[in-house]
Amino acid sequence: MNIMLRIFTVTAYLLFPSMLYGLPYSYFQAKDQYGTNANPEFSEKYFIQTVDHFNFNSMGNATFSQRYLIKETFWRKGSGPIFFYTGNEGDIWEFALNSGFILELAAQQEALVIFGEHRYYGKSMPFGKDSFNIPQVGLLTVEQALADYAVMITELKHQLAAANCPVIVFGGSYGGMLSVYMRLKYPNIVAGALAASAPILSTAGLGDTRQFFRDVTADFENIATECRDAVRQAFHQLKELAESQDYSRIQSEFALCNPPSSGQDINQLNGLLRNAFTMMAMLDYPYSTHFMGNMPANPVKVACQTMLRGSDLLANLRDTAGIVYNSTGILACFDPYSLYKECADPTGCGLGFDSLAWDYQACTEVELCYESNNVTDMFPPMAFTEKDRETYCSKRWGVIPRPGWLRTQFWGDALSTASNIIFSNGNLDPWANGGVRKSLSSSLIALNISEGAHHLDLRGNNEADPPSVIRVRKMESEIIAQWVKMERIRLSE
Amino acid sequence: MNIMLRIFTVTAYLLFPSMLYGLPYSYFQAKDQYGTNANPEFSEKYFIQTVDHFNFNSMGNATFSQRYLIKETFWRKGSGPIFFYTGNEGDIWEFALNSGFILELAAQQEALVIFGEHRYYGKSMPFGKDSFNIPQVGLLTVEQALADYAVMITELKHQLAAANCPVIVFGGSYGGMLSVYMRLKYPNIVAGALAASAPILSTAGLGDTRQFFRDVTADFENIATECRDAVRQAFHQLKELAESQDYSRIQSEFALCNPPSSGQDINQLNGLLRNAFTMMAMLDYPYSTHFMGNMPANPVKVACQTMLRGSDLLANLRDTAGIVYNSTGILACFDPYSLYKECADPTGCGLGFDSLAWDYQACTEVELCYESNNVTDMFPPMAFTEKDRETYCSKRWGVIPRPGWLRTQFWGDALSTASNIIFSNGNLDPWANGGVRKSLSSSLIALNISEGAHHLDLRGNNEADPPSVIRVRKMESEIIAQWVKMERIRLSE
Repeated sequence: MNIMLRIFTVTAYLLFPSMLYGLPYSYFQAKDQYGTNANPEFSEKYFIQTVDHFNFNSMGNATFSQRYLIKETFWRKGSGPIFFYTGNEGDIWEFALNSGFILELAAQQEALVIFGEHRYYGKSMPFGKDSFNIPQVGLLTVEQALADYAVMITELKHQLAAANCPVIVFGGSYGGMLSVYMRLKYPNIVAGALAASAPILSTAGLGDTRQFFRDVTADFENIATECRDAVRQAFHQLKELAESQDYSRIQSEFALCNPPSSGQDINQLNGLLRNAFTMMAMLDYPYSTHFMGNMPANPVKVACQTMLRGSDLLANLRDTAGIVYNSTGILACFDPYSLYKECADPTGCGLGFDSLAWDYQACTEVELCYESNNVTDMFPPMAFTEKDRETYCSKRWGVIPRPGWLRTQFWGDALSTASNIIFSNGNLDPWANGGVRKSLSSSLIALNISEGAHHLDLRGNNEADPPSVIRVRKMESEIIAQWVKMERIRLSE
Repeated sequence: MNIMLRIFTVTAYLLFPSMLYGLPYSYFQAKDQYGTNANPEFSEKYFIQTVDHFNFNSMGNATFSQRYLIKETFWRKGSGPIFFYTGNEGDIWEFALNSGFILELAAQQEALVIFGEHRYYGKSMPFGKDSFNIPQVGLLTVEQALADYAVMITELKHQLAAANCPVIVFGGSYGGMLSVYMRLKYPNIVAGALAASAPILSTAGLGDTRQFFRDVTADFENIATECRDAVRQAFHQLKELAESQDYSRIQSEFALCNPPSSGQDINQLNGLLRNAFTMMAMLDYPYSTHFMGNMPANPVKVACQTMLRGSDLLANLRDTAGIVYNSTGILACFDPYSLYKECADPTGCGLGFDSLAWDYQACTEVELCYESNNVTDMFPPMAFTEKDRETYCSKRWGVIPRPGWLRTQFWGDALSTASNIIFSNGNLDPWANGGVRKSLSSSLIALNISEGAHHLDLRGNNEADPPSVIRVRKMESEIIAQWVKMERIRLSE
């Protein structure tokens, strides 16, 4: 690697946190999750996986290498449970290194831990570098991903002589949705699911498209109504400058690398700014993290302090966005097009290959038509209707979304026949109200974490943890132990 | 149609009962099922169905016309239940006209009745005349068929303003397997399943590969052990003639159109003969039927009378086969290759296009490696191992079966989390012991019909019905009424 490339690379990592996926994580994550010298010591392995589970003629029985991480340290070999993380939209190390609770639980319950990587993410590419070509990308579906996990678990249990070991699945966010789906569709294989911050309802088209940005707004409002008002006012000032085409003022206020020159550029800037608030609301943890970028402790509070520190609201808005996009202070200017990319998910697809895959999923099965409107939220009106989605997805990927499909396929809110699922959600998390907030039965259990952001419960324990997450983790631990016990009886029958 | 073609056609229908699928059934079936003047009066309609549910890029959102039959006569419009038959491997009229019980139940419970035709059967061809080409045939899978039914039910409920109408699925044989799977995978859509004679275990590779022909044998043995012995002895005589290459004697004894000239020809003859016994055991109804060919009342008894009527066992065996293959007496000679076709299902695929589709399914998901061995059954040893299957299927369809897939995907015998399924089986049916014979819970109910053959309970009532089927139908009716009642409560919540 030459010097020029090295400089570019370092800069790129700062600009595009998702590019970190390609690096060993130990350096970046160790301090965050495990203490300076801790090492999660997963073994990284590959599983020979069927490329197309649902068509015997499309690919023959072609296979690809699906990555998984395995940790046997705690396992009572051949009888302890298996804790399987159903990987979601990213490099599997990202999740393995930010889900310390699963390891703590495994230590308690003598479990084998496996993190399975989702096809088309990280290094699990069914068609190598051609994976995002059309039509190769077509095998990126929820159903194929679930079948991957079903086959992988079945086969690994066989290889590890673990036939009588109960399997519990874990997942956060979309990974939590996958955990729910695994329990719905493969209860023969998994005895229970801990689905943390899984918006299974909103992504199936159920609920209010205004909910997401309303709840992002609520997080800032809860710090101070003045904070919310300052954000709204700042966006309003930006709007007025745009309307008067005062683009050089906008450039200077927002430290843009280039002046905007069109409504499209202003849209892009608005998208970038809104996304900063989304990220801070989701990742509003009580300690600094490096999960999905660098984030200070309590970023929503930090944002509100920034928004309210002086009378220049546009400068405050710029610096608030800088918490997310310029945490190291290395950027001399912002380029909205390189820092944020519009896609079929208005909450953000990220950057890099994993963002391509997620864009495709948002264009096919996962419905994310969330809008901001400046009435129920503090953001500029930015609609993303089903029609907008269809136009974008048809052009980008040659697909037409099928609204309602996820609800048909994964039951929507008609979950009463299911069992052994914990739906955990944090009240600070804008995804929470897209999920299940009330228990549906004695074994479909909603656990709400009053001071929690996006799947805080899956993270390892931290001295800054609020009491609510400590309590919920304890309940999760007890419920899972009970599932394991019951499943052990079933398997031995 | 010219005279020559007409003669050919009539002969062809006699030779190939499955070709009847193309004709209106009222003539053939009316006497059998509904009394001379009865008319089931289904409306035949087509549903615009997605060709590929599991890949958004393979076919875009291309659609095909999926046939269904609908009968609204009995329906309490907008509130009565929906009885949906999950069509299996044949023309949907075949099942609609041989499942009178569903109509009788619909009349009692004021239900809407729909029979959905399985993709790649009857007139529901996703690619028209190219449907059985490679790779087009690849979209013939259980999963696609289930998704078809899920989408069709959801959409028809919407069209018919039937949102609050409970849906119960019905099916016989493979159709019963599909009914079970619908309840397992789509309990959000179907409230319960009556699965008649559904061999969900044996087709998932669970159980004993000797079971099927052992149970065919048992039916004849139960009439008289002499009957079983006569059949075994006749096959033994045939074997000795074949070993001494006395092919002209074999030709004359079996009235073959051409003399056999190889071990392959003898194999084909053995397959043809064994299949006759299979058909009679499956269709051992107490009255004559025209379902899957013409069959006299109590065919197993008729067969045993034929086997035991004189000392020329080979002639008896020929005439016993004639019950199945020459019921009208019109055939002057037998051509084993035109009357029976070897395929990936040793119990027989039938003839015509529907048999192509079934052969493909037996080559991919549905495992049917049943053997006869002349020890646990009365037939010549005829193995069909997983290795034989792989060789055949690879050559015929370019596919490699994936043993264990159906068990992974549809839970095998790990059904304890399911609910609201009736597994009915007839003790005379060789498929019965490949299914669920004992109740697994208070809502996974096995009902056994001591004097019943293959899904006798689905047929309309008949004065020759044994008491056991009358009793089971009554129980089914009560259980289904209860499911409907409970589901109505859930839907109105």
